Amino acid sequence: MFLYSEYFYSKTINELFSERQSLAEMLRFEGALALAQAENGIISQQSAEIIDNCCRVDFIDLDKLKSEIKLGGNAAIPLVKQLTRIVKNNDVEASKYVHLGATSQDVVDTATVLQMQEYWYWLNNKLVELLALLTATTHKHRQTLMIGRTLLQQARPITLGLKTAGWLQSIERTKERMKNTQKRVLVIQLGGAVGSGNSNLSKAVQQSLADILDLKPSFSWQSNRDNLVEAASVFGLLNQSLGKIAKDVSLMMQTEVGEVFEGAGEGKGGSSTMPHKRNPVTCAAILANANRIPNLVATMFAAMPQEHERSAGLWHSEWEVLSEIMMLTAGSIERSIELIEGLEVDEKRMLQNLELTKGLIYAENVSLALAKKIGKINAHELVEKACKLAISQQKHLKEVLEEMNLDIENLDELFKPENSIGNSLEIIDEILEIIK
Amino acid sequence: MFLYSEYFYSKTINELFSERQSLAEMLRFEGALALAQAENGIISQQSAEIIDNCCRVDFIDLDKLKSEIKLGGNAAIPLVKQLTRIVKNNDVEASKYVHLGATSQDVVDTATVLQMQEYWYWLNNKLVELLALLTATTHKHRQTLMIGRTLLQQARPITLGLKTAGWLQSIERTKERMKNTQKRVLVIQLGGAVGSGNSNLSKAVQQSLADILDLKPSFSWQSNRDNLVEAASVFGLLNQSLGKIAKDVSLMMQTEVGEVFEGAGEGKGGSSTMPHKRNPVTCAAILANANRIPNLVATMFAAMPQEHERSAGLWHSEWEVLSEIMMLTAGSIERSIELIEGLEVDEKRMLQNLELTKGLIYAENVSLALAKKIGKINAHELVEKACKLAISQQKHLKEVLEEMNLDIENLDELFKPENSIGNSLEIIDEILEIIK
Amino acid sequence: MFLYSEYFYSKTINELFSERQSLAEMLRFEGALALAQAENGIISQQSAEIIDNCCRVDFIDLDKLKSEIKLGGNAAIPLVKQLTRIVKNNDVEASKYVHLGATSQDVVDTATVLQMQEYWYWLNNKLVELLALLTATTHKHRQTLMIGRTLLQQARPITLGLKTAGWLQSIERTKERMKNTQKRVLVIQLGGAVGSGNSNLSKAVQQSLADILDLKPSFSWQSNRDNLVEAASVFGLLNQSLGKIAKDVSLMMQTEVGEVFEGAGEGKGGSSTMPHKRNPVTCAAILANANRIPNLVATMFAAMPQEHERSAGLWHSEWEVLSEIMMLTAGSIERSIELIEGLEVDEKRMLQNLELTKGLIYAENVSLALAKKIGKINAHELVEKACKLAISQQKHLKEVLEEMNLDIENLDELFKPENSIGNSLEIIDEILEIIK
Amino acid sequence: MFLYSEYFYSKTINELFSERQSLAEMLRFEGALALAQAENGIISQQSAEIIDNCCRVDFIDLDKLKSEIKLGGNAAIPLVKQLTRIVKNNDVEASKYVHLGATSQDVVDTATVLQMQEYWYWLNNKLVELLALLTATTHKHRQTLMIGRTLLQQARPITLGLKTAGWLQSIERTKERMKNTQKRVLVIQLGGAVGSGNSNLSKAVQQSLADILDLKPSFSWQSNRDNLVEAASVFGLLNQSLGKIAKDVSLMMQTEVGEVFEGAGEGKGGSSTMPHKRNPVTCAAILANANRIPNLVATMFAAMPQEHERSAGLWHSEWEVLSEIMMLTAGSIERSIELIEGLEVDEKRMLQNLELTKGLIYAENVSLALAKKIGKINAHELVEKACKLAISQQKHLKEVLEEMNLDIENLDELFKPENSIGNSLEIIDEILEIIK
Repeated sequence: MFLYSEYFYSKTINELFSERQSLAEMLRFEGALALAQAENGIISQQSAEIIDNCCRVDFIDLDKLKSEIKLGGNAAIPLVKQLTRIVKNNDVEASKYVHLGATSQDVVDTATVLQMQEYWYWLNNKLVELLALLTATTHKHRQTLMIGRTLLQQARPITLGLKTAGWLQSIERTKERMKNTQKRVLVIQLGGAVGSGNSNLSKAVQQSLADILDLKPSFSWQSNRDNLVEAASVFGLLNQSLGKIAKDVSLMMQTEVGEVFEGAGEGKGGSSTMPHKRNPVTCAAILANANRIPNLVATMFAAMPQEHERSAGLWHSEWEVLSEIMMLTAGSIERSIELIEGLEVDEKRMLQNLELTKGLIYAENVSLALAKKIGKINAHELVEKACKLAISQQKHLKEVLEEMNLDIENLDELFKPENSIGNSLEIIDEILEIIK
Repeated sequence: MFLYSEYFYSKTINELFSERQSLAEMLRFEGALALAQAENGIISQQSAEIIDNCCRVDFIDLDKLKSEIKLGGNAAIPLVKQLTRIVKNNDVEASKYVHLGATSQDVVDTATVLQMQEYWYWLNNKLVELLALLTATTHKHRQTLMIGRTLLQQARPITLGLKTAGWLQSIERTKERMKNTQKRVLVIQLGGAVGSGNSNLSKAVQQSLADILDLKPSFSWQSNRDNLVEAASVFGLLNQSLGKIAKDVSLMMQTEVGEVFEGAGEGKGGSSTMPHKRNPVTCAAILANANRIPNLVATMFAAMPQEHERSAGLWHSEWEVLSEIMMLTAGSIERSIELIEGLEVDEKRMLQNLELTKGLIYAENVSLALAKKIGKINAHELVEKACKLAISQQKHLKEVLEEMNLDIENLDELFKPENSIGNSLEIIDEILEIIK
Repeated sequence: MFLYSEYFYSKTINELFSERQSLAEMLRFEGALALAQAENGIISQQSAEIIDNCCRVDFIDLDKLKSEIKLGGNAAIPLVKQLTRIVKNNDVEASKYVHLGATSQDVVDTATVLQMQEYWYWLNNKLVELLALLTATTHKHRQTLMIGRTLLQQARPITLGLKTAGWLQSIERTKERMKNTQKRVLVIQLGGAVGSGNSNLSKAVQQSLADILDLKPSFSWQSNRDNLVEAASVFGLLNQSLGKIAKDVSLMMQTEVGEVFEGAGEGKGGSSTMPHKRNPVTCAAILANANRIPNLVATMFAAMPQEHERSAGLWHSEWEVLSEIMMLTAGSIERSIELIEGLEVDEKRMLQNLELTKGLIYAENVSLALAKKIGKINAHELVEKACKLAISQQKHLKEVLEEMNLDIENLDELFKPENSIGNSLEIIDEILEIIK
Repeated sequence: MFLYSEYFYSKTINELFSERQSLAEMLRFEGALALAQAENGIISQQSAEIIDNCCRVDFIDLDKLKSEIKLGGNAAIPLVKQLTRIVKNNDVEASKYVHLGATSQDVVDTATVLQMQEYWYWLNNKLVELLALLTATTHKHRQTLMIGRTLLQQARPITLGLKTAGWLQSIERTKERMKNTQKRVLVIQLGGAVGSGNSNLSKAVQQSLADILDLKPSFSWQSNRDNLVEAASVFGLLNQSLGKIAKDVSLMMQTEVGEVFEGAGEGKGGSSTMPHKRNPVTCAAILANANRIPNLVATMFAAMPQEHERSAGLWHSEWEVLSEIMMLTAGSIERSIELIEGLEVDEKRMLQNLELTKGLIYAENVSLALAKKIGKINAHELVEKACKLAISQQKHLKEVLEEMNLDIENLDELFKPENSIGNSLEIIDEILEIIK
């Protein structure tokens, strides 16, 4: 399909949004519509079955269809034309009932929803898979000590599990969002020319169509697109949460940090000129997607103020963009699963990095201990002074403090990472309990 | 504040996001934190009360604070510094407990949520107001006949009520979305330096803080921002749904269409050089906001992959943008309420416009009637031919059809708009029933 | 390729950005690099020619390459690997010099520039074509009277030529922009691993490579991407100027306006359910692209703060997006050429529309004439009053004014459109003179 | 103005875009228009001078004006109304000629350009200042050895001067872009109601107005906005180039890297809870702006397809957004100047970091040296093997290579950073020569 189809994307999902599959979903709509109309006595069962049997993408002349899109402005028009001819070749009577009462947008929109429906199930499974991996990682690294960093500076110790528990929660929340959103999104479009329905598109027909396609019925949403854009937002939230994971991993993979690594497959992450490098190539794909998705989502929002009962251009701008959002998000979650699955953790390096500041990261411990005696402000200033001394003399903060003869009990304890992780373990346990 | 503060924005909401009010919310956090810690025996009740009493924005030297932000990188640092001095002037002991155990982000984020909380209630009320207006409009124009338009072309008749019912639904759905989202968004931030909590920020303290502020407790979301961005998306969806309404109204207000008008206040919509014009100035404000919001939402999505436990820049990019999203959306909904409230409908012009195509908009009626006898394709082609004749001879389609001597019963009935609105009335009634 | 490849896109340009052609450009770089190094005595002429001869996309196993991208993170790594094997099969010695001293980014970036180079020439030709059409249209409709509209309201008369002259100018300016930008954009990338060059990538080699590829030499721009983004902006400006044309045409095509039409090809613009419609399907494609391009350009800007000497993700996010910008813009200009080429103008309807307001559009003429006698404010108020009377009594403004017995000379002349077009004709002539 | 007005913004430039200053520029237009019309005998010199004298923002009732914007849809309408009254109070005759023949958009657009004009000069000066600092930094660190990094991994040595020379070039290019763009952007808008001009807005008047305001004359660009958006793009390019600098600095400031630091002002970069931290607070502001600007630029692009002769909404959406782009970019360049001015470089740490990989960064040197003897592929594989050994045995690569008994001359020389910086010094010298 395109050069980077297996890097930024998911092969499975690329297939789902291929031109063949897109047409197949449109045909599925046409077949189902005929069956729904038969079910309600609008056309004969026989005609409906003939139509439905003709709704096969193999029968379609794709090149002809694509070149005719320029004339009609969407894929449904030439498709219905071809389908009607095909049916006519089988049964003249049945051909009268192809696409009966429907409009192009009914086909295009419902087909889009059908793709989303399959995507929805696929994505839910992937979420389950990723959540399981993140849960396992969080369990495993519940007590793995490392430095927490704010503004790219070492701050105070945490455990790796606390970090991954944060990732875990954000992914879990998207799963919940999908549940909230599903009922609004996975619905049929069947309003006819201007969304008002007609005798061939009665409420009963709409219900039958919805049942056949395992979607929910809906009033027309031809130019009220909030549900679609809500879905795009939810995918976007997921993609950017994955971007956060990739950002953290790529930063932890830095040569100078070296705490965490992408799994090294055969030849993976190598550079063409630097045999020693271990590039965050999986993270790079996810981060690239995270730089693209926000603006694709913006296009969906921008497409919302659609004119009257069907837009001239804004609707059209959704087609490829919504697919792209789903396809890139699919790539991101597949890459993320690979990333978490193969994640290598260098716990020793984490401990070494905790010592990099020569005790400065424990300054707050000292500050708090002192504050109890001399007040926060005085303590803060005193410790600040000690820190400056430690830096200028290149000494360990503990050593400086000892030299300053301050009255602090259990100084050693203040400089242990495991004593400095706050409620990390309790928080992790609670989160794991909730997500379970 | 700024030149267009009453045009694109809401005065009430501008006030909520003023610098004074922003600081007031931060101070509210600091006061509540002290009280929460007292409640849990971490500091004395007396100290807490002294702190809380000092948390008044009037005590703050604003200019000093603003110029110090450059040093610390956020408003919380200089604010806490000033607050501590103020408390110290009252009670040295109490000053030790200001901001105890908390980090700047706890203040900034919770204050943001507190602003959102007030915004939330305000917006909900505005939604109720707008929904009531849209419901009334839909009732009133249930049967007001007008043309439905697709791709900016006249298509088939609908009623104005069908159009407004579509608007109504999309606004209603955002109300539902806010309900879904609220529990994830209106939560405290209280994680300390790296989100791990500490002895001064125990689970009990978090619960107390949440209770005092009428928010929900939450694990730290310092660098997992999906909830905030979800809220931004929901506001964005609302804003763009309002944009759709403004788009429709502005198009219907065109001189050549003239079906619907913004209410004409004294001097409203006039042009400086063309005394006759009636400009859609309210729509223009809403449409302007609809061109801005998508990209502000995109910035929020783009800010999600935040580094480690607190970002260097991405977090900072949220501050003004999230406010701007809320402020612009507030302006849009206020303008929309004014718009719907004052909406003038020219039903006569609507009927005239239905006649503009000389019957061509009823071609499908004829097509369907004919299709029953000669099949869809033949009917389509025959009617197409009749339409071409009507256009080239500048005759009414009905006249042409009569001349063509086609066997169609009740031709007159086929050319009545009230017979061509499909299930418009049933749909409207159902929607009104559901929303009620 | 994809369903809408002939609607939103240009077939010719799709081909240029196909995966085969993308690889072909990369191979062209590798061949040229070898030749450039031979030219400067770094490798033998014989080896260079062997390498160059092997640089054919037919030799490449595409599926293998695509699946290996996941390992290396870009297309250059597996490509160089395959190329080296191919050369080795021909000549072991030569294989030592494949890609000598270069880095993946040299290949990827220069190949991108080579695609842009071909695109540049193609686009320039298309611009010439479009400019010629717009010039002819402007000439032809220099005096075609129509209403000018502001805020979607009839304002004062102009000529169609004035409108198209405005379109013409904005397109012409992009041609100028491309000239300004070309020297910064059509340059090689050849900096080696970290952009510092090396003995195999001397200044002389860079000059030779540039000469062979007909590009300009350049210092490394591996992580300083402003030139690329500038190019994206220029394409974006063009695309949005085309969007403005399509916006105007689509509005003028409205049933209620009916002044201008897309050329009606066989079956073009028809609706599947409304045989009479003449949809702006070409405009819809251009407008759809105009809703997508701004956000793709935003992604390019967002990708600029790239880390160190090569980014982990931001660089990667450019690849498909830059191509997409060029491909969509290509579609927009092709559609625009078709649009202007086939544009049908209904001059009679334009004159009819000038009468729609019953003289109100000439109010300013009256206002100005009166102002000379009674001052602007009084005149404005008096005319405003007359206009209100005209509207409420449904009379022609001229009639009302006559009844008001105002002292205005040559009232008839004030109500002629040809007397109300200001300096339209002079402006058109000047613009045509400049562009010529 | 707003809380972060001195952090993300520039105080000077905030002033320029204040509501008072915005109105002052509009009034400057009105005064200049009267003078230009007097110069061409359209109104009397006396009237013009009276008008011009009344064009003072102090005379304007700001609150009234702001609340009236809702009625007219822009600031020009109530402003002209107030101005006319003020003039009338001075001289009834003169009041007839206020705003003569002009339209609101003439005022608003030209006032915007006048603000851009002042901004242009200010920005150019700032660019000169920044370029001088970057030039000095590049000179100073021409030979300061450090590691070059790709994909956040150590790659090969460069000098700090090479990095800053890259920054320098991208800023220099924006200076060139501004020169190219200026003639298209700094132009008047004076087209009257629909851009056609009129007898009061003759070519001669336009020329006079342009002369008075030191702008260039121009045909109307009321709804062809490419020049304005081009300017926005150029500012955007600058802002994102500054973002690249801040990105690099913030990464080099990481605790684990520690090569470069923001200047430490009194209390700057401190954390409220961690006295030892040195936060990249200046970088954070620039990076925050770099996350916002791309989407603001996108809004400008999205606003381009404006309807007819003046848009209903898109034009309006430009007003605040264009100002915001300029204001944020102003903040970014001011912060960047502070950043480069105060930049502290730890050359020793840079050398230490070069040793972090235990020689692995020199693998390519060895590879190239070996390749001459045994071919690239064999060399690459051999060195890869050596690297793996070095890693697994935690030895220095040189040691491993010595143990492998490979036939490499001058092994020591291959492991010196100064021998591994390619053509860094020559490139720096050339760039400095060109920019000079």
